[in-house]
Amino acid sequence: MITIPTYADILAAHERIKPHIVRTPVLSGDAINALTGAEIFFKCESFQRIGAFKARGATNAVYSLDDATAKRGVVTHSSGNHGAALAWAAKRRGINAVVVVPESAPRTKIANIRRAGAEVVFCESTAAAREAAAAKLVAERGMEFVHPYDDNRVIAGQGTAALELLEEVSDLDIVMAPLGGGGLLSGTTLATKGRDANIRVIGGEPEGANDGFRSFQTGVRVAENVPHTICDGLRTCLSERTFNIITGNTDAIVTATEDNVVRAMRLTWEDLKIVIEPSCCPPLAAIMEGKLDVRGKKVGIILTGGNVDLDKLPWQT
Amino acid sequence: MITIPTYADILAAHERIKPHIVRTPVLSGDAINALTGAEIFFKCESFQRIGAFKARGATNAVYSLDDATAKRGVVTHSSGNHGAALAWAAKRRGINAVVVVPESAPRTKIANIRRAGAEVVFCESTAAAREAAAAKLVAERGMEFVHPYDDNRVIAGQGTAALELLEEVSDLDIVMAPLGGGGLLSGTTLATKGRDANIRVIGGEPEGANDGFRSFQTGVRVAENVPHTICDGLRTCLSERTFNIITGNTDAIVTATEDNVVRAMRLTWEDLKIVIEPSCCPPLAAIMEGKLDVRGKKVGIILTGGNVDLDKLPWQT
Repeated sequence: MITIPTYADILAAHERIKPHIVRTPVLSGDAINALTGAEIFFKCESFQRIGAFKARGATNAVYSLDDATAKRGVVTHSSGNHGAALAWAAKRRGINAVVVVPESAPRTKIANIRRAGAEVVFCESTAAAREAAAAKLVAERGMEFVHPYDDNRVIAGQGTAALELLEEVSDLDIVMAPLGGGGLLSGTTLATKGRDANIRVIGGEPEGANDGFRSFQTGVRVAENVPHTICDGLRTCLSERTFNIITGNTDAIVTATEDNVVRAMRLTWEDLKIVIEPSCCPPLAAIMEGKLDVRGKKVGIILTGGNVDLDKLPWQT
Repeated sequence: MITIPTYADILAAHERIKPHIVRTPVLSGDAINALTGAEIFFKCESFQRIGAFKARGATNAVYSLDDATAKRGVVTHSSGNHGAALAWAAKRRGINAVVVVPESAPRTKIANIRRAGAEVVFCESTAAAREAAAAKLVAERGMEFVHPYDDNRVIAGQGTAALELLEEVSDLDIVMAPLGGGGLLSGTTLATKGRDANIRVIGGEPEGANDGFRSFQTGVRVAENVPHTICDGLRTCLSERTFNIITGNTDAIVTATEDNVVRAMRLTWEDLKIVIEPSCCPPLAAIMEGKLDVRGKKVGIILTGGNVDLDKLPWQT
């Protein structure tokens, strides 16, 4: 049996994490609005703690724990933004965090996790090794495992970004979020539909990692995928839980080419004057390539984060 | 005789321009604070209309005009942010704007001015030709000349950024702004000292265009300079008016090397996740190179704008 969060869980998550997270700004750009013929409102999680929305889910998970459980610490296997977010949230609560990382992970990511205050445990570069290493820490040290997206506390936390967007901008016709493992899109869907079932919720995915799109179209979860995309936060597949939430509640998934992802990224930097990562960009890119008719509509888009390597910008060859 | 704006003029400018401009956010960054040992609050005019603080002064000038004068239009000679700002403000009020531009100006800048709704008049690439062309429009068409910085209405408008910063962050010890022609620093000084004479006001200038620093140190205005700096907004010299305001009221001018300007720019992009232009960066760069002791202090810095060429970032060779 799979449980999923309710709208009440998202409201409770918001109350729980409010003192710890940033209420990020909502920005619009004249050039983007002129190009798309829509009014687009970007919820800028690039300004969130650790530079990504992942701080929301991780903080909700960490602060949901009772004191005795919290004392034994938390563990995850993500060398990306979720690992940094869990480390940050654990440090804020004053508890231990361990992040399981493949031996092949880039040194900079390992340094980031350690700087955020977490212990790093190495494993081989397979999903099985990663899960075994995390399970060992749960068994031996009694640590609480917090999955990057297949976790109701995490999903409820991620849904709070849409909640704030809907509080700030009234009469949205559409809310969009990028789709990777589905934690953000699941939370966004549950928050949005909980508030107003008439608002359409649409996920955006890079064509080079379109397992979510295919899962949604066929009704059969694609659980393995060989991604080819610069959107490094969107390479994972849906879990059974996020697949269920998304197929049951989301209105559509649209995809965009890599070229359009890069064009959308550059346009956002130029028009909004903000630094965002490629994984933010499939929703706007899909609009730009005509996958979705937004003319005359009010559209909210969740921008996931701003952690990019400024030496390697994708529009430069 | 030179007149200068009063604190009351800045308050009046703020009331006048409020409906038209963006109340830009104030951001801080953990890495910047850790590096400098200070609490630094950045007033982000990169999010202002047309991407720069220049919208404030231009809007104040345009909306200060009586209807009969306004009807004849406004003119300036600046192919940079001030030209775009004046074009924008004039369009908003529904009046004509002319921008005098040297024939050698980049096509992109000319296109920007036209897109903002202004007429472009070409002249030869000398200061004399530029001034003559503007004077001709004033004489023949009765247009109102709005200088990029040597104008009380413009200075009062630029001062409103500091006003908002001081409203938002209490107990600042120091307020800093970049120094080019001195319009922003003059407005910042008058606004800050008008509110609280104990707050120190300090200008930041690139070493490669340190005419303001030399003017301040010697008490004699340096009126000519051959600038060598990527800070394209800071290449001009002080006018008699801005020289008088700054020498009479500002506490210090500090300079920074080009290398440190680039380091400060990159650090700001990474830590605050915002796109800012090089001209924003001399204040932070000067702090980073130890020109100013800010440890334990609360410092406000005005970031001037975010109009950069994303194909040519200065940390890339």
